[in-house]
Amino acid sequence: MPAAVSSLDLVEPVLAGKPRAIARLISRVEAGEAECRPALEQIYRRTGGAHVVGVTGVAGSGKSTLLDQLVLEARKSERKIAVIAVDPSSPFSGGSILGDRIRMNELSLDPGVFIRSMATRGAMGGLARATHEAVDLLDAGGFDLILIETVGVGQDEIDIVRAAHTIVVISAPGLGDDIQTIKAGVMEIADIHVVSKCDRPDANKTLKELKSMLTLGFALRGESAWQIPVLATSSAKREGIGELLAAIDRHRRTLDDSGEMEGRRRVIARTRMLKTAENILHDRFEKQHDGKVSSLIERVVTRELNPHTAATELIAALKSEP
Amino acid sequence: MPAAVSSLDLVEPVLAGKPRAIARLISRVEAGEAECRPALEQIYRRTGGAHVVGVTGVAGSGKSTLLDQLVLEARKSERKIAVIAVDPSSPFSGGSILGDRIRMNELSLDPGVFIRSMATRGAMGGLARATHEAVDLLDAGGFDLILIETVGVGQDEIDIVRAAHTIVVISAPGLGDDIQTIKAGVMEIADIHVVSKCDRPDANKTLKELKSMLTLGFALRGESAWQIPVLATSSAKREGIGELLAAIDRHRRTLDDSGEMEGRRRVIARTRMLKTAENILHDRFEKQHDGKVSSLIERVVTRELNPHTAATELIAALKSEP
Repeated sequence: MPAAVSSLDLVEPVLAGKPRAIARLISRVEAGEAECRPALEQIYRRTGGAHVVGVTGVAGSGKSTLLDQLVLEARKSERKIAVIAVDPSSPFSGGSILGDRIRMNELSLDPGVFIRSMATRGAMGGLARATHEAVDLLDAGGFDLILIETVGVGQDEIDIVRAAHTIVVISAPGLGDDIQTIKAGVMEIADIHVVSKCDRPDANKTLKELKSMLTLGFALRGESAWQIPVLATSSAKREGIGELLAAIDRHRRTLDDSGEMEGRRRVIARTRMLKTAENILHDRFEKQHDGKVSSLIERVVTRELNPHTAATELIAALKSEP
Repeated sequence: MPAAVSSLDLVEPVLAGKPRAIARLISRVEAGEAECRPALEQIYRRTGGAHVVGVTGVAGSGKSTLLDQLVLEARKSERKIAVIAVDPSSPFSGGSILGDRIRMNELSLDPGVFIRSMATRGAMGGLARATHEAVDLLDAGGFDLILIETVGVGQDEIDIVRAAHTIVVISAPGLGDDIQTIKAGVMEIADIHVVSKCDRPDANKTLKELKSMLTLGFALRGESAWQIPVLATSSAKREGIGELLAAIDRHRRTLDDSGEMEGRRRVIARTRMLKTAENILHDRFEKQHDGKVSSLIERVVTRELNPHTAATELIAALKSEP
């Protein structure tokens, strides 16, 4: 179906921060519409002002409640804030792990707050791409703080979190070791650790464990001006939220002042570009049902070629394409 | 360091099923040594005889104990059996989730059983590639049944499991919903469901839940001659193990008799080839530190190009390479 309004017509209202235009263009970005490429090109030029914060915690960590309170806290300073909830769909259910929770009611009426769930089925890397592009729209639209909420499972989500300037990992007391292992790969890249539900008696154990992990060098980032804090929060008692926001802001300032932000922006640019290149090639391979791919598959099935040699031939064929 | 023995010298003992030669070549495959490509090419031609079974269950599901008993059961019929334990290393720890468990002691003395842990850090897709190639070695070496044990977390592991002929998913009672969500993406492709620890009183609930999921159409595979069973096992009481082996064998026969094996072999060949092509391109991009990649990154950082346009230029550059 051709879009009645061209994506290019949405550029101006997006740059003016109009929520409906942003929401509309995000939907097209999610659908992977090629038509929005020129609009995204224009919008990308106006990005770079926002502070992008990835917030990761497994189901049961109290992440959503904490985020609600964090947004309320940040709104005290009149900043424009966006929350992008990344929602990994099962290929079967099309449903969401985050579920049907009705959230952030009081926030949804605030014009300085933009809330959006992302859900992309299908193409590898599609969720990460769409999320990065949604961040671009909000960034260009003048949002000061963009919070990306993920459950931290799967490569797509790790790619999403890695593209944030500041990474917050939420752990909750009593969730058990099995669950914590999910987050290997995310734990290591946290800039700020939060232990939620610190009104609970077993919270101290979790705090201690995290601190000793950090002492053991659980951070990969090497030399840095930043000391990774472990913060205690309680959404029930509304405690620690101000401290969390202060730590997020302090991290941004440290990145800027130390010059580390430059390096981080370069890493993000590199990762986004390379991942996109891989995804484009992946799509191209997947769609190529006839000809080269099929004949190579038959030769692999009959054991004439092994998969590695077949892959090499496939790449050679790609290069000789017009 | 140049290898004292050429990988090609290992081909003959590998095809004769010599465990030391197989172990040695697997180590080279894990290290990603280009030198073993010609050997793998020769070995791949001799594959196709083995029945490859992926067994997935989260930590705490009792998977390892169950596998031990399954191997003992299968050995009654004198089949040669291999177990490959896939061990996802954290980029930080280099350690294993499976941990330091000392397993399968009684089995390790049996010359008809080959046990190997895989652990690959680093390159994307490296673990899946190395595991597939280890399976090739064992297949060509005359192993009848190859069991691949995974915890089912991460894209690499899903790729590994998808390359099996038969997929067994183990659930345990009482592990809770949070943990079960990890396996979205694997649950849907199970050919056989197992509920372990069925000596526990809450096992019936898990059995019922799985059966109702299946009734609701939790299998993606469409029309099939195979009815997905939900089996109850108890390693403590040594119950249900014979039934599990019988189901695995029956699944293989059903695939062969219905002609579905052909289609599955084609899907596996396709997936392995395309993934390998992506990994080769990924490595090529990652290694290309100078020139094109760097200049594109700078243009993305300065907002001159967006990541998508930069990716397109990168692919164009790849094509025009000599």
